[in-house]
Amino acid sequence: MTAPTPNKASILLAHGSSDPNWLAPFETLLQRIRGELTDSARVELAYMELAQPSMEHSIQQLAEQGFQVIDVLPLFFAAGRHLRKDVPAMLNELQQRLASSGKQLTLELHQPIGLEPEMASAISQVVVRKLS
Amino acid sequence: MTAPTPNKASILLAHGSSDPNWLAPFETLLQRIRGELTDSARVELAYMELAQPSMEHSIQQLAEQGFQVIDVLPLFFAAGRHLRKDVPAMLNELQQRLASSGKQLTLELHQPIGLEPEMASAISQVVVRKLS
Repeated sequence: MTAPTPNKASILLAHGSSDPNWLAPFETLLQRIRGELTDSARVELAYMELAQPSMEHSIQQLAEQGFQVIDVLPLFFAAGRHLRKDVPAMLNELQQRLASSGKQLTLELHQPIGLEPEMASAISQVVVRKLS
Repeated sequence: MTAPTPNKASILLAHGSSDPNWLAPFETLLQRIRGELTDSARVELAYMELAQPSMEHSIQQLAEQGFQVIDVLPLFFAAGRHLRKDVPAMLNELQQRLASSGKQLTLELHQPIGLEPEMASAISQVVVRKLS
């Protein structure tokens, strides 16, 4: 494991919901992930809509704290309209707004975690276990 | 692995989207899961909204084919309004409608796969790998 880039932070981006029951497992996941990261990498959880903290708020806060590179990791199963259009547009608008106030930010939107091989394996495992 | 109950089928329930890019990984998952199930269990993929086949359509079709017990496994990260209210209401309405046409159906709505331990492990693994 390499040392974290000092000016880099990450946001775990979930869809969001007005239902606290939906949000709770993501909060648990964030704590687990922070515990498993052995370095001091800065990781936040934020929501695209319907819940706080919003993605915009989190990015703005990280920018104010001096972070210049922000990785956005979507906790989504797949990339539909939200990740192909809405989120890139939100990030682009935010980046321009921050640039006009003197904050140059590099924002990298990753592919949804659902497309990573570990996820397809886990989903198959769970389904096969439940149906067997 | 026990032999499948002959009159039992399962539905993998995804949210659905109007974007075919969102749907594609679920189709791939279905094929993988069918391949990994060593018995002849009947498994279908259906969507809650915005895509075909709908959950209602799939259940109705399975009922017409003689299946009497249907497990619904939500491919969701967590249970919010959709899984706590909308889907149970849809299942209840469908069950009553089918009963009134002489088809007694047992529908079991499972907890979302996102709450299973394999999923939390996989999400953590992916995030830690991407951030390290």
